[in-house]
Amino acid sequence: MRLRNDPKAEEKLAEHPTVVVQEPENYKGKWKTIFKNDNPIHIEIGTGKGGFVTGMAKQNPDINYIGIERFTTIVVKAMNNIVDADISNAKLLNVNAVNILQYFEEGEVDRVYLNFSDPWPKDRHARRRLTYKDFLDNYKQIMKKNGEIHFKTDNQALFEFSLESFSKYGMLLKNISLDLHKSDIEGNVMTEYERKFSEEGMRIYRCEAQFIS
Amino acid sequence: MRLRNDPKAEEKLAEHPTVVVQEPENYKGKWKTIFKNDNPIHIEIGTGKGGFVTGMAKQNPDINYIGIERFTTIVVKAMNNIVDADISNAKLLNVNAVNILQYFEEGEVDRVYLNFSDPWPKDRHARRRLTYKDFLDNYKQIMKKNGEIHFKTDNQALFEFSLESFSKYGMLLKNISLDLHKSDIEGNVMTEYERKFSEEGMRIYRCEAQFIS
Ligand SMILES: C[S@@+](CC[C@H](N)C(=O)[O-])C[C@H]1O[C@@H](n2cnc3c(N)ncnc32)[C@H](O)[C@@H]1O
Ligand SMILES: C[S@@+](CC[C@H](N)C(=O)[O-])C[C@H]1O[C@@H](n2cnc3c(N)ncnc32)[C@H](O)[C@@H]1O
Repeated sequence: MRLRNDPKAEEKLAEHPTVVVQEPENYKGKWKTIFKNDNPIHIEIGTGKGGFVTGMAKQNPDINYIGIERFTTIVVKAMNNIVDADISNAKLLNVNAVNILQYFEEGEVDRVYLNFSDPWPKDRHARRRLTYKDFLDNYKQIMKKNGEIHFKTDNQALFEFSLESFSKYGMLLKNISLDLHKSDIEGNVMTEYERKFSEEGMRIYRCEAQFIS
Repeated sequence: MRLRNDPKAEEKLAEHPTVVVQEPENYKGKWKTIFKNDNPIHIEIGTGKGGFVTGMAKQNPDINYIGIERFTTIVVKAMNNIVDADISNAKLLNVNAVNILQYFEEGEVDRVYLNFSDPWPKDRHARRRLTYKDFLDNYKQIMKKNGEIHFKTDNQALFEFSLESFSKYGMLLKNISLDLHKSDIEGNVMTEYERKFSEEGMRIYRCEAQFIS
Protein backbone atom coordinates (compact mmCIF):
# COMPACT_ATOMS: atom_id res chain seq x y z
CA MET A 1 0.00 0.00 0.00
CA ARG A 2 2.56 2.60 1.10
CA LEU A 3 5.83 3.16 -0.66
CA ARG A 4 8.25 1.76 1.90
CA ASN A 5 11.30 2.81 0.00
CA ASP A 6 13.12 4.73 2.69
CA PRO A 7 13.44 2.96 6.05
CA LYS A 8 15.08 5.97 7.66
CA ALA A 9 12.20 8.23 6.67
CA GLU A 10 9.79 5.54 7.91
CA GLU A 11 11.51 5.61 11.27
CA LYS A 12 11.19 9.37 11.52
CA LEU A 13 7.48 9.21 10.80
CA ALA A 14 7.03 6.67 13.55
CA GLU A 15 8.42 9.20 16.03
CA HIS A 16 5.31 11.37 15.65
CA PRO A 17 2.34 9.02 15.53
CA THR A 18 0.01 11.81 16.68
CA VAL A 19 0.82 13.70 13.49
CA VAL A 20 1.40 10.96 10.95
CA VAL A 21 -1.46 8.56 11.49
CA GLN A 22 -0.27 4.95 11.50
CA GLU A 23 -2.44 2.20 9.98
CA PRO A 24 -5.01 4.72 8.77
CA GLU A 25 -7.34 2.00 7.43
CA ASN A 26 -8.25 1.41 11.08
CA TYR A 27 -9.76 4.90 11.28
CA LYS A 28 -12.16 4.59 8.36
CA GLY A 29 -15.39 6.09 9.71
CA LYS A 30 -13.65 7.05 12.96
CA TRP A 31 -11.62 10.15 12.16
CA LYS A 32 -13.48 12.10 14.81
CA THR A 33 -11.80 9.89 17.42
CA ILE A 34 -8.40 10.99 16.13
CA PHE A 35 -9.24 14.68 16.40
CA LYS A 36 -11.36 14.19 19.53
CA ASN A 37 -14.04 16.60 18.27
CA ASP A 38 -16.88 16.89 15.71
CA ASN A 39 -15.34 19.62 13.58
CA PRO A 40 -15.50 19.39 9.78
CA ILE A 41 -12.76 17.42 8.06
CA HIS A 42 -10.94 18.89 5.07
CA ILE A 43 -8.39 16.80 3.23
CA GLU A 44 -5.62 17.83 0.87
CA ILE A 45 -4.48 15.33 -1.69
CA GLY A 46 -0.85 15.56 -2.75
CA THR A 47 0.18 17.64 0.25
CA GLY A 48 3.87 17.87 -0.52
CA LYS A 49 5.84 19.65 2.20
CA GLY A 50 2.71 20.60 4.10
CA GLY A 51 2.83 24.41 4.13
CA PHE A 52 -0.83 24.54 3.09
CA VAL A 53 -2.35 22.20 5.70
CA THR A 54 -0.21 23.77 8.40
CA GLY A 55 -1.19 27.33 7.41
CA MET A 56 -4.85 26.46 7.00
CA ALA A 57 -4.95 24.64 10.33
CA LYS A 58 -3.49 27.67 12.08
CA GLN A 59 -5.92 30.01 10.33
CA ASN A 60 -8.97 27.81 11.01
CA PRO A 61 -8.70 26.12 14.41
CA ASP A 62 -12.29 24.81 14.12
CA ILE A 63 -11.55 22.71 11.05
CA ASN A 64 -9.58 19.48 11.00
CA TYR A 65 -7.08 19.01 8.20
CA ILE A 66 -5.64 15.80 6.82
CA GLY A 67 -2.83 15.94 4.29
CA ILE A 68 -2.35 12.91 2.06
CA GLU A 69 1.05 12.38 0.49
CA ARG A 70 2.44 9.19 -0.96
CA PHE A 71 6.17 9.87 -0.72
CA THR A 72 7.55 9.10 2.70
CA THR A 73 10.52 11.45 2.45
CA ILE A 74 8.19 14.32 1.61
CA VAL A 75 5.81 13.43 4.45
CA VAL A 76 8.75 13.83 6.84
CA LYS A 77 9.01 17.49 5.82
CA ALA A 78 5.28 18.06 6.20
CA MET A 79 5.44 16.37 9.59
CA ASN A 80 8.21 18.68 10.77
CA ASN A 81 6.11 21.66 9.68
CA ILE A 82 3.17 20.51 11.75
CA VAL A 83 5.29 19.56 14.75
CA ASP A 84 6.97 22.98 14.68
CA ALA A 85 3.58 24.71 14.51
CA ASP A 86 2.45 22.73 17.55
CA ILE A 87 -1.13 22.26 16.36
CA SER A 88 -3.53 19.39 16.94
CA ASN A 89 -5.92 19.95 14.01
CA ALA A 90 -3.57 18.85 11.22
CA LYS A 91 -2.67 15.22 10.54
CA LEU A 92 -0.90 13.39 7.73
CA LEU A 93 -1.46 10.14 5.89
CA ASN A 94 1.43 8.56 4.06
CA VAL A 95 -0.68 6.76 1.47
CA ASN A 96 -1.56 6.79 -2.22
CA ALA A 97 -4.77 8.68 -2.95
CA VAL A 98 -5.90 6.05 -5.45
CA ASN A 99 -6.81 3.95 -2.41
CA ILE A 100 -8.69 6.71 -0.63
CA LEU A 101 -11.87 4.65 -0.20
CA GLN A 102 -9.92 2.40 2.17
CA TYR A 103 -9.38 5.27 4.58
CA PHE A 104 -12.60 7.27 4.62
CA GLU A 105 -16.22 6.30 5.11
CA GLU A 106 -19.02 7.64 2.91
CA GLY A 107 -19.76 11.25 3.80
CA GLU A 108 -16.94 11.50 6.31
CA VAL A 109 -15.11 14.36 4.57
CA ASP A 110 -16.38 17.95 4.17
CA ARG A 111 -14.01 19.28 1.54
CA VAL A 112 -11.17 18.20 -0.73
CA TYR A 113 -8.24 20.46 -1.61
CA LEU A 114 -6.10 19.80 -4.66
CA ASN A 115 -3.09 22.08 -4.93
CA PHE A 116 -0.64 21.99 -7.82
CA SER A 117 -1.43 18.40 -8.60
CA ASP A 118 0.92 16.61 -10.96
CA PRO A 119 -0.16 17.67 -14.48
CA TRP A 120 0.43 14.41 -16.36
CA PRO A 121 0.64 16.29 -19.65
CA LYS A 122 0.42 13.30 -21.99
CA ASP A 123 -3.09 12.43 -23.21
CA ARG A 124 -2.54 8.76 -22.48
CA HIS A 125 -1.87 9.62 -18.82
CA ALA A 126 -5.07 11.66 -18.44
CA ARG A 127 -6.56 9.13 -16.03
CA ARG A 128 -3.74 9.73 -13.58
CA ARG A 129 -4.73 13.37 -13.12
CA LEU A 130 -6.32 13.89 -9.71
CA THR A 131 -9.28 15.62 -11.40
CA TYR A 132 -10.02 12.69 -13.72
CA LYS A 133 -13.54 11.31 -13.37
CA ASP A 134 -12.52 8.13 -11.51
CA PHE A 135 -10.99 10.30 -8.78
CA LEU A 136 -14.10 12.49 -8.74
CA ASP A 137 -16.16 9.33 -8.15
CA ASN A 138 -14.10 8.63 -5.05
CA TYR A 139 -14.13 12.20 -3.72
CA LYS A 140 -17.89 12.26 -4.15
CA GLN A 141 -18.25 9.04 -2.22
CA ILE A 142 -16.23 10.11 0.81
CA MET A 143 -17.66 13.65 0.92
CA LYS A 144 -20.87 14.98 2.40
CA LYS A 145 -23.66 15.97 -0.01
CA ASN A 146 -22.84 19.17 -1.90
CA GLY A 147 -19.17 18.83 -0.98
CA GLU A 148 -16.65 21.03 -2.73
CA ILE A 149 -13.28 20.53 -4.33
CA HIS A 150 -11.01 23.58 -4.08
CA PHE A 151 -8.37 23.47 -6.76
CA LYS A 152 -5.29 25.59 -7.48
CA THR A 153 -2.66 25.12 -10.14
CA ASP A 154 -0.15 27.00 -12.27
CA ASN A 155 -0.65 24.54 -15.09
CA GLN A 156 -2.85 25.93 -17.85
CA ALA A 157 -3.53 22.61 -19.57
CA LEU A 158 -4.38 20.87 -16.29
CA PHE A 159 -6.73 23.71 -15.37
CA GLU A 160 -8.50 23.56 -18.73
CA PHE A 161 -8.81 19.78 -18.43
CA SER A 162 -10.09 20.01 -14.87
CA LEU A 163 -12.77 22.64 -15.60
CA GLU A 164 -14.04 20.39 -18.39
CA SER A 165 -13.84 17.30 -16.20
CA PHE A 166 -15.80 18.98 -13.37
CA SER A 167 -18.38 20.27 -15.86
CA LYS A 168 -18.79 16.89 -17.52
CA TYR A 169 -19.33 15.37 -14.09
CA GLY A 170 -22.23 17.77 -13.59
CA MET A 171 -20.46 19.77 -10.90
CA LEU A 172 -21.13 23.45 -10.28
CA LEU A 173 -18.14 25.73 -10.92
CA LYS A 174 -17.72 28.66 -8.54
CA ASN A 175 -15.24 31.41 -7.71
CA ILE A 176 -13.08 30.86 -10.76
CA SER A 177 -9.95 32.97 -10.82
CA LEU A 178 -7.65 32.98 -13.82
CA ASP A 179 -5.00 35.04 -12.04
CA LEU A 180 -5.37 34.41 -8.34
CA HIS A 181 -2.65 36.70 -7.09
CA LYS A 182 -4.15 39.64 -8.95
CA SER A 183 -7.67 39.06 -7.62
CA ASP A 184 -8.98 40.46 -4.38
CA ILE A 185 -9.16 37.28 -2.39
CA GLU A 186 -8.67 37.12 1.32
CA GLY A 187 -7.04 34.50 3.46
CA ASN A 188 -5.27 32.66 0.65
CA VAL A 189 -2.72 30.27 2.15
CA MET A 190 0.12 29.65 -0.27
CA THR A 191 1.57 26.24 -0.93
CA GLU A 192 5.28 25.65 -1.58
CA TYR A 193 4.69 25.30 -5.33
CA GLU A 194 2.45 28.35 -5.36
CA ARG A 195 5.15 30.50 -3.80
CA LYS A 196 7.75 29.26 -6.23
CA PHE A 197 5.65 29.66 -9.37
CA SER A 198 4.15 33.01 -8.45
CA GLU A 199 7.60 34.37 -7.67
CA GLU A 200 8.59 33.27 -11.17
CA GLY A 201 5.72 35.41 -12.49
CA MET A 202 3.47 32.50 -13.42
CA ARG A 203 -0.27 32.93 -13.14
CA ILE A 204 -2.08 30.85 -10.57
CA TYR A 205 -5.47 29.44 -11.56
CA ARG A 206 -8.11 28.56 -8.99
CA CYS A 207 -11.68 27.29 -8.87
CA GLU A 208 -14.19 25.56 -6.64
CA ALA A 209 -16.28 22.69 -7.97
CA GLN A 210 -19.31 21.51 -6.04
CA PHE A 211 -21.07 18.16 -6.30
CA ILE A 212 -24.75 18.92 -6.78
CA SER A 213 -26.45 15.53 -6.92
CA MET B 1 -36.74 48.77 -31.73
CA ARG B 2 -33.74 49.75 -33.82
CA LEU B 3 -31.54 52.69 -33.01
CA ARG B 4 -32.47 55.05 -35.85
CA ASN B 5 -29.90 57.60 -34.90
CA ASP B 6 -28.12 58.04 -38.20
CA PRO B 7 -30.35 58.59 -41.24
CA LYS B 8 -27.41 58.51 -43.65
CA ALA B 9 -26.28 55.13 -42.33
CA GLU B 10 -29.89 53.94 -42.54
CA GLU B 11 -29.96 54.91 -46.19
CA LYS B 12 -26.79 52.99 -46.94
CA LEU B 13 -28.17 49.84 -45.33
CA ALA B 14 -31.27 50.12 -47.50
CA GLU B 15 -29.06 49.88 -50.59
CA HIS B 16 -28.24 46.24 -49.80
CA PRO B 17 -31.46 44.63 -48.62
CA THR B 18 -30.15 41.18 -49.59
CA VAL B 19 -27.36 41.59 -47.00
CA VAL B 20 -29.01 43.66 -44.28
CA VAL B 21 -32.39 42.06 -43.78
CA GLN B 22 -35.16 44.67 -43.51
CA GLU B 23 -38.07 44.13 -41.13
CA PRO B 24 -36.52 40.96 -39.74
CA GLU B 25 -39.54 40.24 -37.50
CA ASN B 26 -41.28 39.12 -40.70
CA TYR B 27 -38.80 36.26 -41.05
CA LYS B 28 -39.29 34.69 -37.65
CA GLY B 29 -39.55 30.97 -38.41
CA LYS B 30 -38.76 31.60 -42.09
CA TRP B 31 -35.02 32.21 -42.24
CA LYS B 32 -34.63 29.33 -44.65
CA THR B 33 -36.56 31.36 -47.24
CA ILE B 34 -33.97 34.14 -46.96
CA PHE B 35 -31.07 31.76 -47.57
CA LYS B 36 -33.06 29.60 -50.00
CA ASN B 37 -31.66 26.38 -48.50
CA ASP B 38 -31.89 24.13 -45.44
CA ASN B 39 -28.37 24.66 -44.15
CA PRO B 40 -27.75 25.20 -40.43
CA ILE B 41 -28.04 28.75 -39.14
CA HIS B 42 -25.31 30.19 -36.90
CA ILE B 43 -25.76 33.64 -35.43
CA GLU B 44 -23.20 36.02 -33.98
CA ILE B 45 -24.41 38.51 -31.41
CA GLY B 46 -22.56 41.82 -31.32
CA THR B 47 -21.01 41.38 -34.75
CA GLY B 48 -19.19 44.69 -34.90
CA LYS B 49 -17.48 45.27 -38.23
CA GLY B 50 -18.28 41.79 -39.46
CA GLY B 51 -14.87 40.26 -40.09
CA PHE B 52 -15.90 37.11 -38.24
CA VAL B 53 -19.19 36.34 -40.03
CA THR B 54 -17.59 37.17 -43.37
CA GLY B 55 -14.57 34.95 -42.74
CA MET B 56 -16.67 32.10 -41.35
CA ALA B 57 -19.11 32.29 -44.26
CA LYS B 58 -16.26 32.02 -46.75
CA GLN B 59 -14.70 29.14 -44.81
CA ASN B 60 -18.00 27.24 -44.43
CA PRO B 61 -20.21 27.68 -47.49
CA ASP B 62 -22.71 25.10 -46.18
CA ILE B 63 -23.56 27.12 -43.09
CA ASN B 64 -25.67 30.25 -43.02
CA TYR B 65 -24.45 33.11 -40.84
CA ILE B 66 -26.44 35.97 -39.38
CA GLY B 67 -24.62 38.81 -37.65
CA ILE B 68 -26.60 40.86 -35.15
CA GLU B 69 -25.41 44.36 -34.35
CA ARG B 70 -27.37 47.18 -32.86
CA PHE B 71 -25.40 50.19 -34.05
CA THR B 72 -26.35 51.22 -37.57
CA THR B 73 -23.06 52.91 -38.37
CA ILE B 74 -21.19 49.72 -37.44
CA VAL B 75 -23.57 47.55 -39.46
CA VAL B 76 -22.64 49.63 -42.52
CA LYS B 77 -19.03 48.46 -42.14
CA ALA B 78 -20.05 44.84 -41.71
CA MET B 79 -22.30 45.18 -44.75
CA ASN B 80 -19.45 46.48 -46.87
CA ASN B 81 -17.34 43.51 -45.77
CA ILE B 82 -20.00 41.04 -46.90
CA VAL B 83 -20.72 42.90 -50.16
CA ASP B 84 -17.01 42.94 -51.00
CA ALA B 85 -16.72 39.21 -50.28
CA ASP B 86 -19.63 38.57 -52.64
CA ILE B 87 -21.18 35.77 -50.57
CA SER B 88 -24.81 34.77 -50.13
CA ASN B 89 -24.54 32.84 -46.84
CA ALA B 90 -23.96 35.83 -44.55
CA LYS B 91 -26.68 38.29 -43.56
CA LEU B 92 -26.97 41.06 -40.99
CA LEU B 93 -29.66 42.25 -38.63
CA ASN B 94 -29.51 45.79 -37.31
CA VAL B 95 -31.32 45.04 -34.06
CA ASN B 96 -30.77 44.84 -30.33
CA ALA B 97 -30.15 41.28 -29.13
CA VAL B 98 -32.34 41.77 -26.07
CA ASN B 99 -35.28 41.40 -28.47
CA ILE B 100 -33.97 38.25 -30.14
CA LEU B 101 -37.14 36.23 -29.50
CA GLN B 102 -38.95 38.58 -31.90
CA TYR B 103 -36.74 37.46 -34.77
CA PHE B 104 -36.21 33.73 -34.33
CA GLU B 105 -38.59 30.84 -33.81
CA GLU B 106 -37.94 28.12 -31.23
CA GLY B 107 -35.24 25.76 -32.48
CA GLU B 108 -34.51 27.80 -35.59
CA VAL B 109 -30.84 28.48 -34.76
CA ASP B 110 -28.05 25.88 -34.62
CA ARG B 111 -25.32 27.82 -32.86
CA VAL B 112 -24.65 31.16 -31.18
CA TYR B 113 -21.30 32.96 -31.36
CA LEU B 114 -20.35 35.60 -28.84
CA ASN B 115 -17.08 37.36 -29.64
CA PHE B 116 -15.53 40.02 -27.41
CA SER B 117 -18.88 40.97 -25.95
CA ASP B 118 -18.99 44.19 -23.97
CA PRO B 119 -17.64 43.30 -20.51
CA TRP B 120 -19.89 45.54 -18.33
CA PRO B 121 -17.33 45.39 -15.51
CA LYS B 122 -19.55 46.82 -12.77
CA ASP B 123 -21.40 44.28 -10.65
CA ARG B 124 -24.64 46.22 -10.93
CA HIS B 125 -24.47 45.87 -14.73
CA ALA B 126 -23.98 42.11 -14.66
CA ARG B 127 -27.39 41.49 -16.21
CA ARG B 128 -26.33 43.36 -19.33
CA ARG B 129 -23.56 40.86 -20.06
CA LEU B 130 -24.51 38.70 -23.04
CA THR B 131 -23.73 35.59 -20.99
CA TYR B 132 -26.09 36.53 -18.15
CA LYS B 133 -28.77 33.92 -17.45
CA ASP B 134 -31.63 35.92 -19.01
CA PHE B 135 -29.75 35.94 -22.30
CA LEU B 136 -29.02 32.22 -21.93
CA ASP B 137 -32.77 31.63 -21.54
CA ASN B 138 -33.31 33.31 -24.91
CA TYR B 139 -30.46 31.55 -26.69
CA LYS B 140 -31.76 28.23 -25.41
CA GLN B 141 -35.22 28.98 -26.70
CA ILE B 142 -34.19 29.87 -30.27
CA MET B 143 -31.61 27.06 -30.54
CA LYS B 144 -32.03 23.42 -31.41
CA LYS B 145 -31.66 20.89 -28.59
CA ASN B 146 -28.03 20.54 -27.45
CA GLY B 147 -27.14 23.80 -29.15
CA GLU B 148 -23.78 25.38 -28.40
CA ILE B 149 -22.54 28.85 -27.58
CA HIS B 150 -19.02 29.53 -28.81
CA PHE B 151 -17.47 32.33 -26.84
CA LYS B 152 -14.23 34.29 -27.20
CA THR B 153 -12.99 37.23 -25.20
CA ASP B 154 -9.85 39.00 -24.04
CA ASN B 155 -11.57 40.04 -20.83
CA GLN B 156 -10.54 37.90 -17.86
CA ALA B 157 -13.37 38.97 -15.56
CA LEU B 158 -16.02 38.45 -18.24
CA PHE B 159 -14.61 35.01 -18.99
CA GLU B 160 -14.64 34.00 -15.31
CA PHE B 161 -18.20 35.30 -14.96
CA SER B 162 -19.31 33.51 -18.12
CA LEU B 163 -17.83 30.12 -17.17
CA GLU B 164 -19.68 30.36 -13.86
CA SER B 165 -22.88 31.53 -15.55
CA PHE B 166 -22.79 28.65 -18.06
CA SER B 167 -22.06 26.17 -15.26
CA LYS B 168 -24.85 27.49 -13.05
CA TYR B 169 -27.21 27.15 -15.99
CA GLY B 170 -26.33 23.45 -16.16
CA MET B 171 -24.46 23.77 -19.44
CA LEU B 172 -21.59 21.51 -20.45
CA LEU B 173 -18.25 23.28 -20.88
CA LYS B 174 -16.05 22.05 -23.72
CA ASN B 175 -12.83 22.96 -25.50
CA ILE B 176 -11.76 25.58 -23.00
CA SER B 177 -8.66 27.48 -24.01
CA LEU B 178 -7.05 29.98 -21.67
CA ASP B 179 -4.62 31.20 -24.32
CA LEU B 180 -6.20 30.59 -27.69
CA HIS B 181 -3.38 31.85 -29.86
CA LYS B 182 -0.90 29.53 -28.17
CA SER B 183 -3.08 26.43 -28.53
CA ASP B 184 -3.10 24.16 -31.54
CA ILE B 185 -6.50 25.07 -32.94
CA GLU B 186 -7.31 25.01 -36.60
CA GLY B 187 -9.53 27.26 -38.63
CA ASN B 188 -9.82 30.06 -36.07
CA VAL B 189 -11.30 33.12 -37.77
CA MET B 190 -10.19 36.28 -35.99
CA THR B 191 -12.51 39.14 -35.21
CA GLU B 192 -11.46 42.80 -35.36
CA TYR B 193 -11.12 43.00 -31.59
CA GLU B 194 -9.26 39.70 -31.48
CA ARG B 195 -6.67 40.93 -33.96
CA LYS B 196 -6.22 44.17 -32.06
CA PHE B 197 -5.92 42.61 -28.60
CA SER B 198 -3.75 39.71 -29.62
CA GLU B 199 -1.37 42.09 -31.39
CA GLU B 200 -1.13 43.96 -28.09
CA GLY B 201 -0.04 40.69 -26.47
CA MET B 202 -3.28 40.06 -24.60
CA ARG B 203 -4.41 36.49 -24.05
CA ILE B 204 -7.55 35.37 -25.79
CA TYR B 205 -9.89 33.09 -23.82
CA ARG B 206 -12.28 30.72 -25.53
CA CYS B 207 -14.85 28.08 -24.62
CA GLU B 208 -17.85 26.22 -25.88
CA ALA B 209 -20.95 25.80 -23.70
CA GLN B 210 -23.62 23.30 -24.65
CA PHE B 211 -27.22 23.21 -23.47
CA ILE B 212 -27.85 19.68 -22.28
CA SER B 213 -31.48 19.63 -21.25
C1 LIG C 1 3.49 19.03 -7.61
S1 LIG C 1 3.47 18.52 -5.97
C2 LIG C 1 2.54 19.77 -5.10
C3 LIG C 1 2.74 19.75 -3.64
C4 LIG C 1 1.93 20.78 -2.82
N1 LIG C 1 0.49 20.52 -2.96
C5 LIG C 1 2.25 22.21 -3.23
O1 LIG C 1 1.37 22.84 -3.87
O2 LIG C 1 3.33 22.69 -2.93
C6 LIG C 1 2.35 17.15 -6.03
C7 LIG C 1 2.44 16.24 -4.83
O3 LIG C 1 1.36 15.31 -4.90
C8 LIG C 1 1.84 14.04 -4.52
N2 LIG C 1 0.95 13.05 -5.13
C9 LIG C 1 0.73 12.89 -6.44
N3 LIG C 1 -0.13 11.89 -6.66
C10 LIG C 1 -0.47 11.39 -5.45
C11 LIG C 1 -1.31 10.35 -5.02
N4 LIG C 1 -1.96 9.57 -5.91
N5 LIG C 1 -1.45 10.13 -3.71
C12 LIG C 1 -0.77 10.88 -2.79
N6 LIG C 1 0.03 11.89 -3.16
C13 LIG C 1 0.20 12.15 -4.47
C14 LIG C 1 3.24 14.01 -5.05
O4 LIG C 1 4.03 13.03 -4.37
C15 LIG C 1 3.71 15.44 -4.78
O5 LIG C 1 4.28 15.56 -3.51
C1 LIG D 1 -16.64 44.95 -28.15
S1 LIG D 1 -17.50 44.92 -29.66
C2 LIG D 1 -16.92 43.42 -30.44
C3 LIG D 1 -17.21 43.39 -31.91
C4 LIG D 1 -16.81 42.10 -32.66
N1 LIG D 1 -17.56 40.94 -32.16
C5 LIG D 1 -15.33 41.81 -32.53
O1 LIG D 1 -14.96 40.85 -31.82
O2 LIG D 1 -14.52 42.54 -33.18
C6 LIG D 1 -19.13 44.49 -29.13
C7 LIG D 1 -20.19 44.78 -30.17
O3 LIG D 1 -21.41 44.23 -29.73
C8 LIG D 1 -22.45 45.15 -30.00
N2 LIG D 1 -23.54 44.85 -29.06
C9 LIG D 1 -23.47 44.94 -27.72
N3 LIG D 1 -24.64 44.64 -27.16
C10 LIG D 1 -25.48 44.33 -28.18
C11 LIG D 1 -26.85 43.97 -28.22
N4 LIG D 1 -27.56 43.86 -27.11
N5 LIG D 1 -27.38 43.74 -29.43
C12 LIG D 1 -26.65 43.89 -30.55
N6 LIG D 1 -25.36 44.26 -30.56
C13 LIG D 1 -24.79 44.48 -29.39
C14 LIG D 1 -21.81 46.49 -29.82
O4 LIG D 1 -22.54 47.49 -30.49
C15 LIG D 1 -20.42 46.27 -30.40
O5 LIG D 1 -20.37 46.53 -31.78
